[in-house]
Amino acid sequence: MQPLDPEALAGDSNAVMDFLAEYYRDVDKYPVRAANLEPGRLRELLPKAAPEVGEPMEEVLEDVRRDILPGLTHWQSPRFFAYFPMNASAAGLAGEMLSVGLNVVPFVWAASPAAAELETVVVDWMAQLLGLPRRFMFSGGGGGVLQGSTCEAVVCTLAAARDRQLARLGHEAITRLVVYSSDQTHATFQKGARLVGIPPSNFRAIPTSAASGYGLTADAVRAAVDRDVALGLVPLYLCATVGTTGLGAVDAVREIGELRDYLDGAELADSVSTNPHKWFLTNMDCCCLWVANPRALTSALSTDPEYLKDDVGIDECTGKPAAIDYKDWQISMTRRFRAIKLWVVLRRYGAAGMRAHIRRHVAAAQWFEQAVAADGRFEVVVPRRFSLVCFRLAKRCVGDDDAAANGANRDLLAAVNASGQAFMTHFVVDDRFLLRLAVGGASTELLHVKEVWELLQGKADEVLQRYQRKAHRM
Amino acid sequence: MQPLDPEALAGDSNAVMDFLAEYYRDVDKYPVRAANLEPGRLRELLPKAAPEVGEPMEEVLEDVRRDILPGLTHWQSPRFFAYFPMNASAAGLAGEMLSVGLNVVPFVWAASPAAAELETVVVDWMAQLLGLPRRFMFSGGGGGVLQGSTCEAVVCTLAAARDRQLARLGHEAITRLVVYSSDQTHATFQKGARLVGIPPSNFRAIPTSAASGYGLTADAVRAAVDRDVALGLVPLYLCATVGTTGLGAVDAVREIGELRDYLDGAELADSVSTNPHKWFLTNMDCCCLWVANPRALTSALSTDPEYLKDDVGIDECTGKPAAIDYKDWQISMTRRFRAIKLWVVLRRYGAAGMRAHIRRHVAAAQWFEQAVAADGRFEVVVPRRFSLVCFRLAKRCVGDDDAAANGANRDLLAAVNASGQAFMTHFVVDDRFLLRLAVGGASTELLHVKEVWELLQGKADEVLQRYQRKAHRM
Repeated sequence: MQPLDPEALAGDSNAVMDFLAEYYRDVDKYPVRAANLEPGRLRELLPKAAPEVGEPMEEVLEDVRRDILPGLTHWQSPRFFAYFPMNASAAGLAGEMLSVGLNVVPFVWAASPAAAELETVVVDWMAQLLGLPRRFMFSGGGGGVLQGSTCEAVVCTLAAARDRQLARLGHEAITRLVVYSSDQTHATFQKGARLVGIPPSNFRAIPTSAASGYGLTADAVRAAVDRDVALGLVPLYLCATVGTTGLGAVDAVREIGELRDYLDGAELADSVSTNPHKWFLTNMDCCCLWVANPRALTSALSTDPEYLKDDVGIDECTGKPAAIDYKDWQISMTRRFRAIKLWVVLRRYGAAGMRAHIRRHVAAAQWFEQAVAADGRFEVVVPRRFSLVCFRLAKRCVGDDDAAANGANRDLLAAVNASGQAFMTHFVVDDRFLLRLAVGGASTELLHVKEVWELLQGKADEVLQRYQRKAHRM
Repeated sequence: MQPLDPEALAGDSNAVMDFLAEYYRDVDKYPVRAANLEPGRLRELLPKAAPEVGEPMEEVLEDVRRDILPGLTHWQSPRFFAYFPMNASAAGLAGEMLSVGLNVVPFVWAASPAAAELETVVVDWMAQLLGLPRRFMFSGGGGGVLQGSTCEAVVCTLAAARDRQLARLGHEAITRLVVYSSDQTHATFQKGARLVGIPPSNFRAIPTSAASGYGLTADAVRAAVDRDVALGLVPLYLCATVGTTGLGAVDAVREIGELRDYLDGAELADSVSTNPHKWFLTNMDCCCLWVANPRALTSALSTDPEYLKDDVGIDECTGKPAAIDYKDWQISMTRRFRAIKLWVVLRRYGAAGMRAHIRRHVAAAQWFEQAVAADGRFEVVVPRRFSLVCFRLAKRCVGDDDAAANGANRDLLAAVNASGQAFMTHFVVDDRFLLRLAVGGASTELLHVKEVWELLQGKADEVLQRYQRKAHRM
């Protein structure tokens, strides 16, 4: 057995590449949401134990085709409009193959200097593309790191904020720390706060409303913080979101930023994070986290065991700030060479290509929003931002009845998803059930958005007729 | 731009495969540790901003060859004996390509049922191969999950243990919770404990000694726990290790397990974790975590936001235990389809192949240990377990002087690593600096171990002559 024999490597990989090329030729033909939704079915199909003797790659791939593909939801289908899409791309796959193929671990600088440095370069590139302030770039005294997910980023920055406060107040004060977000903030934030030991009774999900487009306002934040301070609690961390998951709402970041003095000891926008694995053609996983003060982060996350002390043989470098031990910028010690993936994506498509990719989805969502608004049976629930459209069948079409309107919209979503021709998910705001069209799949084009609109119109006819008959009978 | 066009996909991927095949043909020729150890060098070579227009894959790969490879430490070299090696393999790469190529997100069951189920199958397979008790398998009421690293597994199980205690004692009790490990336990454990909010003053690193091969003993644990209980503290979590990083020491797991009543409310060996990405031919990243009581884990980690409620369209399944939302078994919501990678590895090599792979390394380490023991200049510092050999130049060869012995061993390690012909790391125990030969690289064979022994002998001559001359002059 020669696990890294170049011939074996090429053989197995070529078989997979052929499989994937075929998959992407056909991906549009699969039902988007898994056709087989019976729990336990795959377990029944597979043997109860690993094979004793190795099998050929062709057999393995045949099993993937026969047993696994029918049970997958096809996230790379151009008709995937659910949750938020997760982008894949030729460059993202190629970059990930380099990362996984080289299989180096840039956890301490000496363990792979070029990998750590490439990471410092691409996070600065990304910060520029997003127009972040210079204080988040290495070139401006801050810095960034590539993690696996927003939740990791949240845990790390919460731990940094917590430890800064506890160093001042003593560890018992952990029960007095309070974290803030809106009622629209992703659940991952409260999960992160809970992980780092903030008492759940100190999570403030500040209510938002249609008046602010379901975005957080400075007044609401100020009121919540004032209340807690009066109670002797310690405001720790505010999480603001630009484009929430449910509705795409935007918190008033700049306005809230002016409240920084309210947040005792903390500075608002100490950190920023975003996921290239969502809309930026970068296969999973890749989350950019930038911090203005790297030392606050590494103080909370560093370790220095003997077996990682790397002064042996590289004395001339020790202590230089250019030599980053990225293990101290994240939860885990082990880490992937994600930088090469994001770098390949940026190189292959360029800034212009990325902009075109994103703009084409925003334009398609715009088209969809206008189509919905022009159809009397539907309504747009919140004004579109970016490429997420939140819409529903209007209440007036089902006897002006709240429950009926929610039922009809549930039925509409179920009918669309059961068709296999598209996959969307829902949200509920102010007790109104709505459908979310999240445009963002790597191969999703205006054509697919137009098709899903036709599909929705057809299913809406069926659903509305059913509800109108029902109303008539009553 | 068609990011998922099958031709583009094949083009970019084939270019990378050719690159990787060439890399693995030559990997043995590179200096193992990065030749270029000057911080900041790569940053200087690369442009300050992402390109505006996309570039061909060939140019990108040319830059990898010219700018990045010389700055990498080659973890896949057969002469990599540092830290613990991280395995790569043809099957591991192929499996990862499937994972990254399909790019599905098995975070809630409905989002990719077959992916979640494959994960339940492979963790049961792995539990069988390792001979874990049935209570850690899905088939026995427990269950497993694939995470990215041990640190994540530690954070998750610590959070579960913590929340179980705090539900009983109230959140203020967080400052009274105490965690236990040995002074040889990986630093990741204390990092994890700190992340979940345990006060650092409540971390007990129980001293070990040569008498127990630097493994934790039941007596030492009992004494530490008794002390804390007498102080009104609450023992929370004990981390036992089979094969520590520094020395490969083994904690007396069975003996300590008999103390479970001492750990108030907790049950010892509630969880087990191991990393297939280290010695199990599975490219990064892949950590198996098994728990005997999945509910304790999901109670600490679950979230249930509206946009993930998946009752729409799959009513018949809701609530069935077979439908696992793996997002509640880990830190992040987002997750990779790691199961298909581990499954491909197990299928391609089989249980017999994996055993052979591991035994060949143990045999090579055994050979090395005997060679060291037979050479009067060297000594084996702790008896070898598995495939890690901890050894050093004997103190008697450098004037019986402690400081000189440490210096000589430091110099020996530096000389070996500077040669580029091997890469090893060190450890310190009882103030003795030692060298670690960690045999475990996917393509490492007895031949390479014999070569590094020759190299060590040659460098030892040079170092000892220098020290003997020095001693002579004094």
